[in-house]
Order: sequence, then C-alpha cells, then structure tokens
Amino acid sequence: MRGAVLYAPGDVRFEDRPDPTIANPTDAIIRMSATCVCGSDLWPYRGTDPVTAPTPMGHEYVGIVQEVGADVRTVKPGQFVIGSFMASDNTCPICQAGYQSRCAHVEYVGAEGAQAEYLRVPLADGTLVATPDLPEEGLLPDLLAASDVLGTGWFGAVAADVAPGKTVAVVGDGAVGLLAVLAAKHLGAERIIAMSRHEPRQKLAVEFGATDIVTDRGDDGVAKIKDLTGGLGAHCVIEAVGTQESMMQAIRSARPGGHVGYVGVAHGVQLPGEELFYAEVHQLGGPAPVRRFLPELIGLIEKREINPGKVFDLDLPLAEVAEGYRAMDERRAIKTLLRP
Amino acid sequence: MRGAVLYAPGDVRFEDRPDPTIANPTDAIIRMSATCVCGSDLWPYRGTDPVTAPTPMGHEYVGIVQEVGADVRTVKPGQFVIGSFMASDNTCPICQAGYQSRCAHVEYVGAEGAQAEYLRVPLADGTLVATPDLPEEGLLPDLLAASDVLGTGWFGAVAADVAPGKTVAVVGDGAVGLLAVLAAKHLGAERIIAMSRHEPRQKLAVEFGATDIVTDRGDDGVAKIKDLTGGLGAHCVIEAVGTQESMMQAIRSARPGGHVGYVGVAHGVQLPGEELFYAEVHQLGGPAPVRRFLPELIGLIEKREINPGKVFDLDLPLAEVAEGYRAMDERRAIKTLLRP
Repeated sequence: MRGAVLYAPGDVRFEDRPDPTIANPTDAIIRMSATCVCGSDLWPYRGTDPVTAPTPMGHEYVGIVQEVGADVRTVKPGQFVIGSFMASDNTCPICQAGYQSRCAHVEYVGAEGAQAEYLRVPLADGTLVATPDLPEEGLLPDLLAASDVLGTGWFGAVAADVAPGKTVAVVGDGAVGLLAVLAAKHLGAERIIAMSRHEPRQKLAVEFGATDIVTDRGDDGVAKIKDLTGGLGAHCVIEAVGTQESMMQAIRSARPGGHVGYVGVAHGVQLPGEELFYAEVHQLGGPAPVRRFLPELIGLIEKREINPGKVFDLDLPLAEVAEGYRAMDERRAIKTLLRP
Repeated sequence: MRGAVLYAPGDVRFEDRPDPTIANPTDAIIRMSATCVCGSDLWPYRGTDPVTAPTPMGHEYVGIVQEVGADVRTVKPGQFVIGSFMASDNTCPICQAGYQSRCAHVEYVGAEGAQAEYLRVPLADGTLVATPDLPEEGLLPDLLAASDVLGTGWFGAVAADVAPGKTVAVVGDGAVGLLAVLAAKHLGAERIIAMSRHEPRQKLAVEFGATDIVTDRGDDGVAKIKDLTGGLGAHCVIEAVGTQESMMQAIRSARPGGHVGYVGVAHGVQLPGEELFYAEVHQLGGPAPVRRFLPELIGLIEKREINPGKVFDLDLPLAEVAEGYRAMDERRAIKTLLRP
C-alpha cells in the first residue's frame, strides 16, 4: 500500500509501505475512506518534537472493515467504522469510568500511521464504532472529524463543565478550538468567547456558535475576558493549544471555582503551584477519551444536528499529503482532509 | 489586649497589642474563647516564608461577639460564633457558587492575628456563623477545628470527589490530612489509605476511619497505592502538605480520570505540564472555602457525629503560645489549642 512517512521536519513523503496484517486476534484491518492531518502532526513536522527515524504519520481515520482477527465480535468486514486515535478495550475500570484514552491496555493507533490506504486497529471491539449503514458520501468529513478533533473539542468542553447558562472562553482557534465552540454551543452555553486573531477562523467560530471574539492574547486577552464577565472571569475555559502562554491564559481567564478543560498537547509547560493554588480553578485535561463520545457524536452527525466537517477547508488526494502539511503549517488551511 | 507576634523565625512573643476596634460598619469584634496554631503558621515560623516585620499570628478562632458595626445584621453581641480565616460577603457570584475563600471582596481575617484575646472580623454577616446556643465547654475544640483544619480537610475531600464506594488516599498526616480522613469517612468512602510514618498520627487516622496505612513516601508511596488498587491508583487523592514531592505523590497516586484535591499551601511547587496532561486527573484546590461547610459541620459537631477536636493533643494557656509553636515544630504535638 501507499502511505505518508515523515523523514525529517518538513519532509513528508508518500511512499510504498507494507500492507498491515492481523497481528493479534483482537485486531481489525480497515481500508481507509478518508484520513486527515492533525494540528498535533505539526509538532514533529515543525521539529518541535524530534524526528529520530522515518515515522508513519496520521491517527485519524474512517473506513471499511476488510478483515478481523479471530476474537473480534462486534465489527465485521464491510462495515463502515470510526475509531479514536487511542485503542481501548472499553471494558477495564478506567474505560468504564469514561477514560478510554488511558485504558489499562491502551495502544496508540497512530503508531502504524493512518495517513495510508490501510490501517491495523488494535482492540477493534473496544475501539471501533460502526455506523448503522454505509453513510452518504457528504457525511464523510463530519464522521472523520469525530475520530479526533470533534471528540477532543467535545472532551475539552465537558472537562470545562460547560452547561446551560455558562460563559465559556476558548483559547486556540485550530480545528479543536473551533469544535470546542461547537460543543459548547450544543451543551447549552449562554455565551461563548472565541479567542482568535484569524478572520476565516473567527467566521467559522461564529458559525459554530461563538457570541464574542477576543483577538488579544496572553494577559491582554485575560483582561478582555475579565471585562466581558464583570471582572470575575469565565465559568468555563477550554485550552486547545498546549503552550505555556495558552495554559496560563486559560487558567487566568477562569473565575475562582471555574473549570479549565485542557486538550492542547502540552509542550514545555510548567505550571506555577502557588498561582494555581490561589487561582482555585478545577482543571482536567489530557488525551481525549474520544471513544466515550463516539456513539453520541455519530448520532448527532447522522441527524445533521452538528456539522463538524466544516473545519476541513482543504480536500486533497492522499497522494498530495505533503501539500496538506504545508498548507496547515503556513496557516493557509485550518485542516486538510485526505482521500485515498 | 495581649496577643502573639512573630518577630523572626522561631521567635514568637506574647505581648501587649492594641485592642481591635470597629474599622468598617460590616465588622464585628469577638472575644476569643479559643484559638490555635496552624500547620501553615509553621511556614514563617521555620523561615520558609520570610518574616520581614513583626507579624501578629493566627487565623483560627471561636468566640463571643462583643461589638458589631452599624451594618451588621445576622450576628449580635453575646452570640458564640465561628468563622473562616477568609472573610467573605457570602453574596457575590463567587461566594454563591461556594468559593467564599475567593469572594470578590475577600479579606484575610488573620491579618490582625487571631492568637489574641480579641479579634476584628471583617464582613461579619458573611463570615461568621453563630451556634444556636452557647456550646458546652467540651465542644470548644471541635468547633474551633471547624474554623480551618476541619473545613480545609473537608474541602480537600469534596474537591477530590470522595463518595460512597471510592478508594481515597490522603497525602499528609498533619491536622488537615487527619481531618481529610474523617471527612472521607463521613462522605462514605469505602477504603481510606492514610500516608503517614508517625505512630500517634497513624492511630488517630485509624480512629478517624483510615482502613490502610502506607508509610512510604514519594514514588515508593505511589507504588504502594498502586499495589493496593489493582495497579490503577486511587479514585480520590487528598494532598495536605504543599511541597513538590507531596503534589507529585498525590497526582501519581490517582488513577486516570480520578480526582486530586489539594489543600496544602503550595510552596515552591512547579507542575510538569506533560506529565499532568498524560496523567489525566481532575485537580482542584486552594484556600478552602470553609464558610461553605460551616453550617453543616457545626450541626455534625453538635450532634456528636464527628469529633474533629481530637487533633488537638496539646492544650495550653494563650500566654504559652511560644511553647505551642515549638511543640508543633518539633512534631511533639499535632496541633496546639490555646485558651486566653
């Protein structure tokens, strides 16, 4: 098969790779219907995360089951499936509590690279969710978004305790931040403040439900949030970047007793304990347990109640994956969809 | 009047100080029935917090209202009252959400020193809770504990989401840690693991409801907690120390999706963002909103359902305050009660 491999920062190649095979009886092999480039793929692409060896890339996927291992019970060849980037058994106590991304038997699905024609998915029964029927072609981008960025934004909103009547601030205007806006809207937030300085992203944020846009960053951005909330800060803040500045911006934007949900993959972050102590805000974050939300999100998409696929503003053949990375790196695209 | 003043590390003096007076119409003056020395008083006593000027000490108090300002409505002279170390209006949106320690008009009651014969309490209506009648002498230690250490341990347990069926670990065996054990028991925890290496404190922990004692610290302590919880970690961890080691011990002892409630005043703590991200635990802490819990705690004490005053294992005249500090510093006493 053919798939994307990162050789060095900025050097993504589309090349021949071995076809995946059933390695464990709980595996499934899927034929990719669509995949995409994640904001977190840019960390190694930009060299922020080291690239020590040629690395198969991608961890977002929707596709058709081709083959299953002997122990797989709940999915079968021919079904259209969606899964998270983290494989989970969905039965251990951690999964049962809703934290499948930290399953006692967790495996990273992206290890073999989802930006490819085929993918091996471990723990298929616990990881994959099949749609009732083969979905319409037009729903592909929405369903693909559910594989990571929608589920991650959703987790950010749930972790930030978004609920009716709440004022929500979202730090970060990538696909996850934008879909956190969508999630906050769906969860009934009264006011949603998107922090963004990029006009196309501001427009999409408003389309997804943002009521206010703040273009300032750092402590200036915090001051604006305070201005908009009677000096108190937001009830709920979703952090979707992962830097020191964005984390402190999120914590300082929340009112005492408020909630910060952080889903940007932390890079070089050190949180000052004294400030955190006196901030007195709830914090929860980490790799999103997307699997928890998949059945609900698939239902909302099939009923056309949400349209998360709008974050894909570049649609390329998989063979042009390198251009997909470049466009996102240069912020010409929010998110690139790739079709084999 | 006479009161305690810290001049330098290790140098607490009992000396003449000006009588407090009504400074604002929302103030009350109370005559102290009992006060005490807090673990957090040891930070400046030991020189960990700098002592830049002679400082009136103490922030825990129960007493009889002597005088109230013109705007005070809910407490009156002659009543026996308990209050938190943080004065709060109890009406602002932050207070109404239960975070009175971060009230929009918060003041630190301890600024004028509660280890004294009289104390001015700001925002008396929002801060003080009167008992229905003058309490029996024997309940004084229990009611005094409610002013800080009981309310703080309770908040730690609530912040750690303690509930029936949960396994709880408590890091720290000072008065707050011990009372977090008591709170966890009252809140229905199934298993309570106290981390302590001091025999008298272990005994009190067991008396308060601990089911297991772990004497190891740091990563060894974490390994023991994992051993006791099927490799997963505790559902709920209460941190009651405030150091880098204790915070990391708490975070690492919690299972993914679990909760850490931290109430030890943070000193020199820096939390590594990457580890926190992948730990995926809920965190909440800070100065306890004791006022939230006071009515319930007073009720439990008056019904003899809890006996938090047992943390006082040294009972001295206020004039001997210096010995009260020494005994706690040398760990000869868990907590010193002082009677004017």
